[in-house]
Amino acid sequence: MTAPTIHDCDILVHNGLILTMDPQRQIISDGMVAIRKDAIVYVGPKTASVASDVTLDAQGGIILPGLVNGHTHTAMTLFRGLADDLPLMEWLTGYIFPAESRIDADFVHVGALLACAEMIYSGVTTFCDMYLFEDEVAKASQESGMRSLVGEVLYDFPSPHYGAIENGFAYTEHLIEKWKDDPLVSIAVEPHAPYTCSPELLRTAHAISRRHNVPLVIHLAETQTEVAEIQNRYGKLPVEHLESLGILGPHLIADHCVHINDSEIERLTQHHVNIVSNPESNMKLASGVSPIATLIARGLTVGLGTDGCASNNNLDMFQEMDTVAKLQKIAQMDPTALDAVTVLKMATCNGARALGMGDIIGSLEPGKKADIIVVDTAKPHLTPMYNPYSHLVYAASGADVRHSIINGKLVMKDRKLLTLNADDIMARANEKAALVKQWVA
Amino acid sequence: MTAPTIHDCDILVHNGLILTMDPQRQIISDGMVAIRKDAIVYVGPKTASVASDVTLDAQGGIILPGLVNGHTHTAMTLFRGLADDLPLMEWLTGYIFPAESRIDADFVHVGALLACAEMIYSGVTTFCDMYLFEDEVAKASQESGMRSLVGEVLYDFPSPHYGAIENGFAYTEHLIEKWKDDPLVSIAVEPHAPYTCSPELLRTAHAISRRHNVPLVIHLAETQTEVAEIQNRYGKLPVEHLESLGILGPHLIADHCVHINDSEIERLTQHHVNIVSNPESNMKLASGVSPIATLIARGLTVGLGTDGCASNNNLDMFQEMDTVAKLQKIAQMDPTALDAVTVLKMATCNGARALGMGDIIGSLEPGKKADIIVVDTAKPHLTPMYNPYSHLVYAASGADVRHSIINGKLVMKDRKLLTLNADDIMARANEKAALVKQWVA
Repeated sequence: MTAPTIHDCDILVHNGLILTMDPQRQIISDGMVAIRKDAIVYVGPKTASVASDVTLDAQGGIILPGLVNGHTHTAMTLFRGLADDLPLMEWLTGYIFPAESRIDADFVHVGALLACAEMIYSGVTTFCDMYLFEDEVAKASQESGMRSLVGEVLYDFPSPHYGAIENGFAYTEHLIEKWKDDPLVSIAVEPHAPYTCSPELLRTAHAISRRHNVPLVIHLAETQTEVAEIQNRYGKLPVEHLESLGILGPHLIADHCVHINDSEIERLTQHHVNIVSNPESNMKLASGVSPIATLIARGLTVGLGTDGCASNNNLDMFQEMDTVAKLQKIAQMDPTALDAVTVLKMATCNGARALGMGDIIGSLEPGKKADIIVVDTAKPHLTPMYNPYSHLVYAASGADVRHSIINGKLVMKDRKLLTLNADDIMARANEKAALVKQWVA
Repeated sequence: MTAPTIHDCDILVHNGLILTMDPQRQIISDGMVAIRKDAIVYVGPKTASVASDVTLDAQGGIILPGLVNGHTHTAMTLFRGLADDLPLMEWLTGYIFPAESRIDADFVHVGALLACAEMIYSGVTTFCDMYLFEDEVAKASQESGMRSLVGEVLYDFPSPHYGAIENGFAYTEHLIEKWKDDPLVSIAVEPHAPYTCSPELLRTAHAISRRHNVPLVIHLAETQTEVAEIQNRYGKLPVEHLESLGILGPHLIADHCVHINDSEIERLTQHHVNIVSNPESNMKLASGVSPIATLIARGLTVGLGTDGCASNNNLDMFQEMDTVAKLQKIAQMDPTALDAVTVLKMATCNGARALGMGDIIGSLEPGKKADIIVVDTAKPHLTPMYNPYSHLVYAASGADVRHSIINGKLVMKDRKLLTLNADDIMARANEKAALVKQWVA
């Protein structure tokens, strides 16, 4: 570490083991991170007397970049456990679709706030969301102090929110304009999936994304059914179909990518497409196993996400890290597949890169935005500690996160949320749940 | 519920949703459980004025039977994260075996205490252990107030503890005699596995188990390598091999059972063998996927375990429940495989039956021993609640357990351990870890 010595800062985090997740993957024992305004100004060994407004004692725990949840439908927290263990179509048509046809802006706002509370509690500092009434998610992100990339879901059938697709495009452009100078919220153009969006819709969505230079987010090759349908309709595999429409590129964030063959992986690589994998959701819905280890070996940037709460059923990225490693090992029958360091990269630096935020977050380096969490390791299930990466991936849970800082602002201290009132949000969530029960009765 | 009204008790747990896990799977809203001495005397709706020495307010959370961790190597908490993501033989010969050759009674005692602390924190009230110096595990179980079935591991090669196998048999009989009247600790005879134990060893172990009427515990059909080796040596599959030795029966607890065919499942069923599945360990070591849904469909009793911390790397049964359900769904490509109720039964009533304790624990019913936990659901990741089974399996983690009672004794209140000093145990564990680092250096 060649960071210059500093004398004062706004927030000082000290007395912990720092996992920088920087390109050299430096680890600093008894390290110190200093923050001024929204940025990191020092990462390195403890130095003498630094004055700071706020000092956080990591108490020997692990200091690391905040986790990036690369794929969420935050408002679906309000459907958590509504219906599980059902065939996909029964789940969708019997519960999710009827409920979603009734939701409104306030419903989405409350669900997104609930998700933000859960995510801050479990160490997530950035999320990428796709849903309806997405302006409400942006507002919840802002209120909670979380960083986000959000976008209104676009598809061929009428939306319970905006109706016809033209309004969806207009709403998306309105969001881009409205949030363009926000320090925390960014907007993406988000067509749902190749099987729910016509080629024309996809081309238009891509054009908007390019015109405003914002990411394009899509579900891609999530199920075998999707692959069969796209082949049937267009005579092409899903990735080939998107390539033929000219929308593959480094601006594209493709969620899932479960059922893709070697030739498709090659196309994704050539076009530098970003991937976000969601293993727990893919398991729970019995969608399949994404060839993550292969994608990473080919040089693709792969992030990690929880997907929505209706198919997981929580937003805990620590559990997701544990699962993604173990699922790759069992799928390949190889205990060396997807090691702990690679997995933590998916949830930090590579997750940030996948969302187009690699330059500003994802690692602890001077000049980057201060998105930092502290994990308390003085617990029986995290004792002893031979390897901090192993502990974070295989032994910790979201409940072990003690402090969280996002964009230089302390949002959780000693497991107390400082930006949100969790009790109030839970009470409002329970009121919405009472409505949901009526809707699906 | 036809339980008689009561007027006084030693401990009263009230103001929660009771999942009895009894044969009718009764659920009681705003329920109450009353305990006298070591037993449950009332489970049912809240009744007027019951006097009690101790009253636990569940605060609207879930009251359920304590979880049964059906397979552990508790002292291996001290190897947690020592070496991960390695080929099996490199892991065993480079790290685990060299370290295990150096351990002593105090090492096992500290490791077992650490495991007990972790398990109480995460809602486990009963565990089944196999390791070396097992008297120390029994003592740790007693000190912590946990219920256990423990046994010294027996195999053909010299043990770092007892040396020659004759001593292993003698030690096992000594343990059986020493602990025979203990209210918490039971002893099993525990030959390691068909590939590490000669037919003669297995026959003798079986005979000791029958002579003393205690369970016989064995690892069975964990890896493809084991199956090939048994076939090569004996011309039989592992289950056929045990059947030919006459040791299959309702006294047998078979751990793993990953690689078994239909004919072997039929034999296990005929002989009423008990199974304990360890999906996270099987995933991490890339052993394979046990056909649990099939085993259960055939009527076998299947419990759930975490296995040792070196291959998991925690003892959290909530995460294990989540994983077992999702792994079966993805392995069968069927989202209806292994639903939440079935999974919670594996971790409670059926887990207890698998260990031969089905008559005394595993459900909340008058007359059963009082092994009870309370899960705090007033948290964002457990809000809203449509289905308590779904929440416990798919959304909760061990950190959500608030109170724990074992054998009528309060062992954790408001996440404070009452029987163990966690700080002291962690300090001792860290001293042992310093030795381990020297051993494998």
